[in-house]
Amino acid sequence: MSTPGRLWLVPAPLDFGCDSTTPLQDVLPQGTLVAAAQLRHWVCENAKSARAYLKRIDALVPLALPLQQLDIQELPHAVHKKGDHRGEFDARTLLAPALAGHDMGLLSEAGMPAIADPGSSLVRAAHDLGVAVVPLVGPISLLLALAASGLNGQNFAFVGYLPQDASERQTRLRQLENTALSSGQTQIFIETPYRNPAIWQAMMTHLKAQTRVCMASGLTLSNAAVECHAVQTWRQKNRTPPKDVPTVFAIGV
Amino acid sequence: MSTPGRLWLVPAPLDFGCDSTTPLQDVLPQGTLVAAAQLRHWVCENAKSARAYLKRIDALVPLALPLQQLDIQELPHAVHKKGDHRGEFDARTLLAPALAGHDMGLLSEAGMPAIADPGSSLVRAAHDLGVAVVPLVGPISLLLALAASGLNGQNFAFVGYLPQDASERQTRLRQLENTALSSGQTQIFIETPYRNPAIWQAMMTHLKAQTRVCMASGLTLSNAAVECHAVQTWRQKNRTPPKDVPTVFAIGV
Repeated sequence: MSTPGRLWLVPAPLDFGCDSTTPLQDVLPQGTLVAAAQLRHWVCENAKSARAYLKRIDALVPLALPLQQLDIQELPHAVHKKGDHRGEFDARTLLAPALAGHDMGLLSEAGMPAIADPGSSLVRAAHDLGVAVVPLVGPISLLLALAASGLNGQNFAFVGYLPQDASERQTRLRQLENTALSSGQTQIFIETPYRNPAIWQAMMTHLKAQTRVCMASGLTLSNAAVECHAVQTWRQKNRTPPKDVPTVFAIGV
Repeated sequence: MSTPGRLWLVPAPLDFGCDSTTPLQDVLPQGTLVAAAQLRHWVCENAKSARAYLKRIDALVPLALPLQQLDIQELPHAVHKKGDHRGEFDARTLLAPALAGHDMGLLSEAGMPAIADPGSSLVRAAHDLGVAVVPLVGPISLLLALAASGLNGQNFAFVGYLPQDASERQTRLRQLENTALSSGQTQIFIETPYRNPAIWQAMMTHLKAQTRVCMASGLTLSNAAVECHAVQTWRQKNRTPPKDVPTVFAIGV
């Protein structure tokens, strides 16, 4: 039996679905581009956008094989479901190239695979099957937002999406605020962009005046903006996050 | 009054204090190197290591000014203290160049400033003083470890360091395990490298057989290794993390 290949976690830029296109070399190290360009076997969320990304890489570092000859598999849809990182699927089939000795790449639609994105189930299976996992450096919007917030970066949590129901969302926001105020643990969350204004309104209405809130929009894009203020300061500014730009929110002290 | 300059958060490689030296272009995008090379005013933890890092950048992208002519200030020691991201200090003096219209860089010893590292107090002051904050892409060991762990990346917390006292550490480990098992929230923590074997022994002794544990050592270095298994599997492997390599630990389901 041959030594298994490795599973490389390949980050993507954060401009997916946005108007602006970030030059890849602004957000991805040369080392990441070179490693990605060598890979002949891929698992991704969506083969079409994976090919578009690999084409952008090819313009900077020639791919080892022509795009059409790459082996590109999609993660099963069950594994995409938000919040379920242990969806059942046939990992042995997806990881067959690695088990046969070939290096493979895992790619998500934006940022780092397996962080606030599908992919962890495949990584989990790789560990179980003895396939070494190698993460490559690239943009991770949650952590860029946290660093730029000035909120506590020694103790923090990312909690995903908040409930859509207004009453449940209010309860959840107050719960996150209580955790942040009582433990000092910064609470980070995201929202589907078109709901950004609604979640912001809820924060301005229900959070305490002194609680600090960070709004980080369009990170690494040309319209990037990060601001962090006490709720009472935000209320005076009377601002709203854009409804068409990915935004990361955080609550802290 | 002039428009304030911006505060750029400049990540550093993770090889600080380690034998191996990672080529900068493996872990830092060209965009980060170019942005850093333009900056003439810096705030850092330690001026000596900041100069050593800037010298490495200069070899790839020439600095705007000779190294000796750069303005390099150190964060006051009170602000270094782990767990206190709101130390009192004279932010107006540190941020004086930005308030006078010049862009500035903030640098920590390894990885991203203000994440598991000092710097958030300066970022916080920047927001209060109307100085825009721009995070640059680079390596963040906590998140590279999380992505490569296969543990839940939709809901996770970084909780810093565990208590040193054996009894308190045991209590804290069980508390983190309970949180991970009951809420599905991955719990990430770090340790001073020479204590890695002790914390590992405590995990092997006190955690449940089915709980999954990730050990991510030397990320982005030549001796990088990430593995994640159930405690019962780790016990069979009878392994111990290196006591001289930065290691990230995580507990999850």
